[in-house]
Amino acid sequence: MTQQKRTVFYLSDRTGITAETLGHSLLTQFDGIQWSIVNMPFLDDIEQARTVLTQINQAAENDGHRPLVFSTLLKPEILEVIKQANCRIYDFFETFIRSIEEELEQPFARMAGRSHGQDQLSYFKRIAAVNYVLAHDDGVNPKHFDEADIILIGVSRSGKTPTCLYLGLQYGIAAANYPLTPDDMTVQQIPKVLENVRKKLFGLTLTSAQLHFIRQQRRPNSEYASLAQCQRELQWQESLFHQFDIPYLETTRISIEEISAVILNRCGLRRQLYG
Amino acid sequence: MTQQKRTVFYLSDRTGITAETLGHSLLTQFDGIQWSIVNMPFLDDIEQARTVLTQINQAAENDGHRPLVFSTLLKPEILEVIKQANCRIYDFFETFIRSIEEELEQPFARMAGRSHGQDQLSYFKRIAAVNYVLAHDDGVNPKHFDEADIILIGVSRSGKTPTCLYLGLQYGIAAANYPLTPDDMTVQQIPKVLENVRKKLFGLTLTSAQLHFIRQQRRPNSEYASLAQCQRELQWQESLFHQFDIPYLETTRISIEEISAVILNRCGLRRQLYG
Repeated sequence: MTQQKRTVFYLSDRTGITAETLGHSLLTQFDGIQWSIVNMPFLDDIEQARTVLTQINQAAENDGHRPLVFSTLLKPEILEVIKQANCRIYDFFETFIRSIEEELEQPFARMAGRSHGQDQLSYFKRIAAVNYVLAHDDGVNPKHFDEADIILIGVSRSGKTPTCLYLGLQYGIAAANYPLTPDDMTVQQIPKVLENVRKKLFGLTLTSAQLHFIRQQRRPNSEYASLAQCQRELQWQESLFHQFDIPYLETTRISIEEISAVILNRCGLRRQLYG
Repeated sequence: MTQQKRTVFYLSDRTGITAETLGHSLLTQFDGIQWSIVNMPFLDDIEQARTVLTQINQAAENDGHRPLVFSTLLKPEILEVIKQANCRIYDFFETFIRSIEEELEQPFARMAGRSHGQDQLSYFKRIAAVNYVLAHDDGVNPKHFDEADIILIGVSRSGKTPTCLYLGLQYGIAAANYPLTPDDMTVQQIPKVLENVRKKLFGLTLTSAQLHFIRQQRRPNSEYASLAQCQRELQWQESLFHQFDIPYLETTRISIEEISAVILNRCGLRRQLYG
């Protein structure tokens, strides 16, 4: 059976993040379709809209199916143009906004750019958190670990740094991280430098096969990358996590978004993307 | 006039990112309401749902208005519990999924965790991009700048690093950055090390008042932070951007998300959050 080919358009007055998030979360519920994805952020004049209209009709012809269009467009005159295209439109604002107007007993502002504009989680809070993450990556400056909201620990290449950066950038969380190295593994103890901040520790682990794969890309055929070494290190750290009751997460098949959400949830940290 | 107080709940089987992104983009269209925000990710058993039901009813009583509930819950039995609460539910899946089923001529999978799960933009691509960003931050390793997708330039504290990290983490873009310093400003020239990669340059600028404010926090009352110095550096860089036709963006009042979206759009780089 050949896969169905379809095109999806994400149309927005501004960044397009909301339109893409919505459409993606709906479309991932359907299997066996080969999607062509077209992002059209900052769509705010009629001429552009006419070009998009042509593109949509062209895609409909090429695919033999009309495209799906997810829109967070706010300008009625732009939407009017798109509505003439051969497509199925899912209009995010129109769908919900009337009912919310009714519920809140006021009209909506119809102003673009509010969602990812200035009222995003305070710019300064995020920048400060990113600076904290960068200054406390990979075990650097442990004397300031008491200022951390959380400290991720795990063996080399267990995903500590990207997770810390995501926590800082998206949630304004001051996330430090400390690598568990073979030097630490001579004893079954929490490294000395972490003893006073035990309550802030959170472990990241993964399968030895995955760790081996990742390390192979970094230093092919080294002792460091060998499956046996990966197994030894992971066994050591997992038994440490158990012995000292350190919460931890198996990250092999989940995304940075999901790892971060789990950590915040389990540590009771404020998890708010906005405001 | 006292502000209306209302509570919003974001309910999800998994990370809650979709529910919060969508709800936030709707609610920012309404002014003058003081929101209490309750995030309930990983809501997947009946007992938890009953607790949330109680919390919703409690909030309704406290606020004197029923809460708004934005849900991406997929399990009908969980939703059934929530529907008994005194609230207005906006159910993102139910609202759109039937029509998409019809359009695609297949039933949806009803599987949680797909949107921010494994099929997120390739984990490895993102990690590689983050590693590139970290290894080429602040002018480090310019001899590898030809491998960059983009190179942000701007004076100290113009927001280069957080923007590069966001581009790497969210979009898998290899973003380098180079600081324009007073040393560069003795001549009206592109720094030598950037000459061969001119096509990849993108400038970040901001108002001198904002730059002064940011630098004051870093080194209070220094020459570096003085308004006059900020003005001099910004004038120099803006005239450089004009003279050499370097695209640039005024970032004073916009978020990292928006800065990133504009850069990708203007440079014609692939901007896709997922897949």
